[in-house]
Amino acid sequence: MFVCILRFMRPVQKKKRSKDSGYRVGGRIWIKGPEGAFLGYGRVVLLEHIRDHGSISAAARSMSMSYRHAWKLVDSMNAQAKAPLVQMSTGGSGGGGAVLTDAGERAIAAFWQVHDDCNAFFEHQTAALEW
Amino acid sequence: MFVCILRFMRPVQKKKRSKDSGYRVGGRIWIKGPEGAFLGYGRVVLLEHIRDHGSISAAARSMSMSYRHAWKLVDSMNAQAKAPLVQMSTGGSGGGGAVLTDAGERAIAAFWQVHDDCNAFFEHQTAALEW
Repeated sequence: MFVCILRFMRPVQKKKRSKDSGYRVGGRIWIKGPEGAFLGYGRVVLLEHIRDHGSISAAARSMSMSYRHAWKLVDSMNAQAKAPLVQMSTGGSGGGGAVLTDAGERAIAAFWQVHDDCNAFFEHQTAALEW
Repeated sequence: MFVCILRFMRPVQKKKRSKDSGYRVGGRIWIKGPEGAFLGYGRVVLLEHIRDHGSISAAARSMSMSYRHAWKLVDSMNAQAKAPLVQMSTGGSGGGGAVLTDAGERAIAAFWQVHDDCNAFFEHQTAALEW
């Protein structure tokens, strides 16, 4: 897929028409789910921090995000995913922990793939800008 | 360019893997200029309303936007464009008017071209979603 884009981009990139003009195409992308927002930049970074920190509260703290907001985002993602992205456990001597599931890993990978492909396309659009 | 994308998209669209799953790739796009924000959805719609209404104040009113904000956006676009997108005239019996220039028409066309191409690419990404 990505190789296809690069092959598709090559002829236009050679011209370098708009790259030097200071005009650039940019954008923000997301993946919507059955109930609306599903995966975006912030949500995916939160998933990565949960994987790294082992709990929603520690992940939220590391991102200067309220626990309540982080919990709501995880709840929204879990509700819309085919299988939960984050597995939560309550209680125990160390308090409740959270583990990123295989589905969570796949969601992160899928989002970054789309993110990278779209940014490559924006670069291509910048090179092709007729302005 | 657009035809190339459609040809590029066809094989993946046939599969219709993720279209039925409820997951969709979406995004918001813009064109940055030498000083930052240059053309985005709201700015381009403002240009179109100026063309239709013949003045910044009437265009702003029709979009429930303050004149001050509309004027700032036009000023930002004019300052970054190679040639002014909007020509303003002051005074006269009917007050100050504003006319969209040829450069303004080209800017509008360039933005919608990028907008449509990117949305076509988002559709392609939706069809190719591996999730």
